[in-house]
Amino acid sequence: MPVPPADLSDPQHSDCRGVASVLSRVGDKWSVLVIMMLVDGPRRFNELKRMIGGVSQRMLTLTLRGLERDGLVTRTIYPTIPPRVDYELTELGHGLSEPVKALGSWALTHLPEIQQAREKFDGEGDRA
Amino acid sequence: MPVPPADLSDPQHSDCRGVASVLSRVGDKWSVLVIMMLVDGPRRFNELKRMIGGVSQRMLTLTLRGLERDGLVTRTIYPTIPPRVDYELTELGHGLSEPVKALGSWALTHLPEIQQAREKFDGEGDRA
Repeated sequence: MPVPPADLSDPQHSDCRGVASVLSRVGDKWSVLVIMMLVDGPRRFNELKRMIGGVSQRMLTLTLRGLERDGLVTRTIYPTIPPRVDYELTELGHGLSEPVKALGSWALTHLPEIQQAREKFDGEGDRA
Repeated sequence: MPVPPADLSDPQHSDCRGVASVLSRVGDKWSVLVIMMLVDGPRRFNELKRMIGGVSQRMLTLTLRGLERDGLVTRTIYPTIPPRVDYELTELGHGLSEPVKALGSWALTHLPEIQQAREKFDGEGDRA
């Protein structure tokens, strides 16, 4: 059965707060980068850390924990010495990566226009 | 000329911070709701305030100012008594509304799964 289109424009929608909590995941830079890094398959913690420049150990741990909590990522521990921990997108996580990629692509394409608009706005000085 | 697909998975991309600043707009509940409310045409401040339940005067003002700064929304003042102020999506804003709608629709469709995952995760108690 086809899923009816979601009506985000209905502010009375009881799921509004829930949707916002999902969107805030997308507004989080590290979550988006981790999701993107896992699109091609599972990765170890240290691989992710290396791939995502500038993320601290603690921030990456928190980000992965949040994604795991949302059911977007699974964590698998292999009892090797030292133990190996793999992170992988769930089916749900792969599903989310599609609209996130579309949005990231839009942002990257239109970034110059947005930056230009910001400079113009900031340059206009005092406003009513 | 076709635009090459954006490679968000390249963390060394110099625009990474800029893209994050655009994505953070999408992570902001009020910005997303305002964009959605303007999809069908211009609206006045008080109309928007009424349509978006629970937003304060100050928060709506700040949100609209941010969207205007990003070049996503224009503000038009009509010198009536009292003055009428209309907000309208720019072409850029309409463009952004498309991937945002897709994402919001995904979030609304998969919200039950995410909420279920959260409950399961939180119920698992103490973790390593």
